[in-house]
Amino acid sequence: MRTSIATVCLSGALDRKLHAAADAGFDGVEIFEPDLVVSQHSPEEIAALADRLGLALDLYQPFRDAEGVDDASFGDVVRRARAKFALMNRMGIDTMLVCSNVATATRDSDDVSARQLAALGDVAGEHGIRLAYEALAWGRFVDDYRHAWRIVERADHPQVGVCLDSFHILSRGHDPAGIEQIPGDKIFFLQLADAPVLTMDVLSWSRHHRLFPGEGGFDLPAFLGHVLRAGYEGPISLEVFNDTFRQTDPERTALQARRSLRWLEDHAAAAGVGAGMEPLPDVQHPTAFGFVEVKGEDTSPVEALLGQLGFTFRGRHRTKPVRLWSAGDAYVVCNEQHARDSAPSLAALGFDVTDPRAGERRAEALAAPTRFRQAYAGEQELPTFAAPDGTEIMLSAATGSGREPGWVDEFEGGSPPPGSTILGVDHVNLVQPWQHYDEAALFYESVLALHAQPAQEVAGPAGLVLSRVMRTADGAVRLALNLLPAGLAAGAGLPQHVAFATSDVRAAVEHGRRHGLRVLDVPDNYYEDLTARFDLDPDFVTSLRSLDLLYDRDADGEFLHCYTRTIGDVFFELVERRQAYDGFGAPNAPVRLAAQTVVA
Amino acid sequence: MRTSIATVCLSGALDRKLHAAADAGFDGVEIFEPDLVVSQHSPEEIAALADRLGLALDLYQPFRDAEGVDDASFGDVVRRARAKFALMNRMGIDTMLVCSNVATATRDSDDVSARQLAALGDVAGEHGIRLAYEALAWGRFVDDYRHAWRIVERADHPQVGVCLDSFHILSRGHDPAGIEQIPGDKIFFLQLADAPVLTMDVLSWSRHHRLFPGEGGFDLPAFLGHVLRAGYEGPISLEVFNDTFRQTDPERTALQARRSLRWLEDHAAAAGVGAGMEPLPDVQHPTAFGFVEVKGEDTSPVEALLGQLGFTFRGRHRTKPVRLWSAGDAYVVCNEQHARDSAPSLAALGFDVTDPRAGERRAEALAAPTRFRQAYAGEQELPTFAAPDGTEIMLSAATGSGREPGWVDEFEGGSPPPGSTILGVDHVNLVQPWQHYDEAALFYESVLALHAQPAQEVAGPAGLVLSRVMRTADGAVRLALNLLPAGLAAGAGLPQHVAFATSDVRAAVEHGRRHGLRVLDVPDNYYEDLTARFDLDPDFVTSLRSLDLLYDRDADGEFLHCYTRTIGDVFFELVERRQAYDGFGAPNAPVRLAAQTVVA
Repeated sequence: MRTSIATVCLSGALDRKLHAAADAGFDGVEIFEPDLVVSQHSPEEIAALADRLGLALDLYQPFRDAEGVDDASFGDVVRRARAKFALMNRMGIDTMLVCSNVATATRDSDDVSARQLAALGDVAGEHGIRLAYEALAWGRFVDDYRHAWRIVERADHPQVGVCLDSFHILSRGHDPAGIEQIPGDKIFFLQLADAPVLTMDVLSWSRHHRLFPGEGGFDLPAFLGHVLRAGYEGPISLEVFNDTFRQTDPERTALQARRSLRWLEDHAAAAGVGAGMEPLPDVQHPTAFGFVEVKGEDTSPVEALLGQLGFTFRGRHRTKPVRLWSAGDAYVVCNEQHARDSAPSLAALGFDVTDPRAGERRAEALAAPTRFRQAYAGEQELPTFAAPDGTEIMLSAATGSGREPGWVDEFEGGSPPPGSTILGVDHVNLVQPWQHYDEAALFYESVLALHAQPAQEVAGPAGLVLSRVMRTADGAVRLALNLLPAGLAAGAGLPQHVAFATSDVRAAVEHGRRHGLRVLDVPDNYYEDLTARFDLDPDFVTSLRSLDLLYDRDADGEFLHCYTRTIGDVFFELVERRQAYDGFGAPNAPVRLAAQTVVA
Repeated sequence: MRTSIATVCLSGALDRKLHAAADAGFDGVEIFEPDLVVSQHSPEEIAALADRLGLALDLYQPFRDAEGVDDASFGDVVRRARAKFALMNRMGIDTMLVCSNVATATRDSDDVSARQLAALGDVAGEHGIRLAYEALAWGRFVDDYRHAWRIVERADHPQVGVCLDSFHILSRGHDPAGIEQIPGDKIFFLQLADAPVLTMDVLSWSRHHRLFPGEGGFDLPAFLGHVLRAGYEGPISLEVFNDTFRQTDPERTALQARRSLRWLEDHAAAAGVGAGMEPLPDVQHPTAFGFVEVKGEDTSPVEALLGQLGFTFRGRHRTKPVRLWSAGDAYVVCNEQHARDSAPSLAALGFDVTDPRAGERRAEALAAPTRFRQAYAGEQELPTFAAPDGTEIMLSAATGSGREPGWVDEFEGGSPPPGSTILGVDHVNLVQPWQHYDEAALFYESVLALHAQPAQEVAGPAGLVLSRVMRTADGAVRLALNLLPAGLAAGAGLPQHVAFATSDVRAAVEHGRRHGLRVLDVPDNYYEDLTARFDLDPDFVTSLRSLDLLYDRDADGEFLHCYTRTIGDVFFELVERRQAYDGFGAPNAPVRLAAQTVVA
């Protein structure tokens, strides 16, 4: 699969963008005109740099206000185009993107547009250039790819074809299946962009909120399938206008972009469409959190808390300053190595998969940065790589229910835990820096096949927290990604947490209290409101209140939960799911955020 | 005018919100239920605190899903309401906001809604409580205030009236003039919010982007006029959901909120509506920038640059380490006092007004923080106060054309400048921290009657810069406020600049070059593109290119300009406006941003 990326996707100066695209493994770039205009490098220098880096210059874009104009104005269009064709010849670019007219169109006539495109095609032909005509979603008279194709068909000119852009098509809800009616050799270019599902004017949506495939809400694999089935053989290119990418390192963004296309290629290979599509190593669906690791110079307060929660100390590692606690299927590793001056925090997540080595190969193919660990799981050498926020992801072999993981043997000490109300890890909640939020979605989707749920907003005393859950379909692994308010991002972060599933949260808290556990205080006002909202039995509410338990209910079932105090940057949650409740008690999150602020 | 503010406008815990509202001078607050639910303080404690602070509890809000429901469900509505009425009684709150139903409405019938509101009114009456029914802009069946009023009229119950919210009315484009048809004593509550003009789903717009009056695009003075003419005599309250306010200090936000109502009251007083509306001291319309001040430990590189630009050194201040340069009507003060270790930056702006003392009184009435200056303008003691970003604003007496300001006499040295191509200050460009961007608009609008132009976005190599011009109608004072990309906000800021108007920018640059001036390099690619865009005479483009001048043209005229290199955090621009060109060369801003990045 030939891959390309528009320079507008990346921040920085044009030469740096080219380096970033080449380093990430792209085959070509689209030259976004404004990037060239502000560059101190001449067109010849840019072309020579691209050549040295092995990057094709696949497209020059955009050329605006080209068709649908009065005859009197068309002369100026041709004059402008000639200047750009000459420039493209100097750079060796043979395809120009021509947008449907937004600003200067006065003639709502397919005939006029077709005639003017054909006339431009004649001039382009003199320069050996092809015109890829694209329907912008906000075009004045042409805003639908099917309409653009009708005009191109009518123009009937060898130099005139269409450019398809997934955003312009899917944002309008147009059916992409019609793409298969267009002859593949008349699709001159393909641009892909994903986007979150938003209800806003399509121009702002397009200019600020596009995402790379796999990060948003569009079905890009299906879209690409239509284009490939139409017979398109050109490059698969990304054109993503995004406020965040404009502000982050182009090198990192380019890698993220390349990952999105690698993931898409895998889908095409699986669907058997397109030539030479290479599948990724099979995805390893995680069956559970294998363990979580808390790292810090002194993890003893965390260990004391685990003890109160009913965890059993399982011993020290044979060779490393690492200690293991477990309860049910929940394993918490407390790691003090290389953690000088650092407060306890969530540093690594272990996922149980069928074949950890195959999972590692897939992660490598998706350019996840591998991490060398002098791992406490020494003999097993669990494959380790880094998530976008730096959290280390480790893959361990899934064991049958009731059997302990092999690496547990490396810890010398305690015996297997006695019966516990704690069943395992219910979910993990990670705070994401703003610049890695979308990248994280693509990472967990492509590497571990965790699917993003719609994002939710939670009001905290210091701002709104945006929360998105990535999960397996069966709920065996649930990972909530929280985006911090900008005001907090600069200062101290929000703590992260691990939620443990219990069979009986009241018993768990009562047990904990006998061992000194103090859970987060819940205000009385909460219980009054709860009573009003749900019409609950007063005795039940009294029992919740006496244990500082939070409660939620929906059509599927009930949810009882509570939070520990925070140690360093980490805290724990105990949850009890009743019936088929599948949420996270989101209505209670503001209570937690407020209570944590009071404590702090 | 009695003023109130919803607690949701402010960040932090509920008790801190109350303190902030009281400190800012509000008469009351609306209790936003979720703020109470998460508070560790009991309802009685909150009521007692409000009482001690002299704050009325004007409203309890919101009560949702109240009407338009099936008869079977209505019983539960009454049960919920009774619990809240009892709570309100404990807090001494006598008015509840009842939203039009979004989630649970199944009966699209005015008769059903009116009957259910009347039944709720009966229960409310038992508790001495009034219900203020509000049409949410996204209500299921009721989304228009006129519709809500028809239902209230039909309910015909003494405890049932309407709540009017400017956002819900103006966001939908509904004509607020109809408010005057509602009897004033049936308007139970008034909530005001401004908002930027956005095209997005109204729910997201409402939840994230509301602003205080004077900060957005709604005509709140006119809106308030309608409500007051209807005979409304209750508090004027603010309900502003805004992502930024949620993240910033509640004390500061409360002052900003109170300023917005003070400005609004002034409009009501001028319009002669409402009882007891107090006018502000008359606004002093600035007639020009009196001067700009650059402050730094060593301003000599700035002074060298001013010399190259054709400025004349006018001498040292009699008593302070402050030096004056001038050209035409442009005065630049270079101030080295109390500036140890600080790089040169724009520290103060002087505005010429008719009556500086009256301007100061208005600023004080609007709670602008006054600054004591051991001013270089010693004898004159120019009134000084701080803009939201900390820039000091000084007011000086306007002098007739051709006459020098009186304070110039305090500088001992050079003679008046000879004829210069520099005419004066064309505009000043200030970088605003994200949390003060909207506050700045209100500040310059209310204190100095500068009006905001629509915001524009400019692409820079490190992100999008949002730019909004505040100006006098005649263009005598133009102040551009630039909002930094979040990625930059944490690190080094963008430099700020002063643009000087010239009668002949080419002559000015040629003069400068003879004195060592080097303006910012403009890439050749820019001139090629310029030629293609505008079909300019090649000789003219050659002359622009030889001087690194940028060019813009619109229907009103032409604009030629260039930028100096940056010293510390400040640089200068030379501009020449031809015919009636009234813009700022926005298409060229990316060229500048890219060139400045290359230099850095």
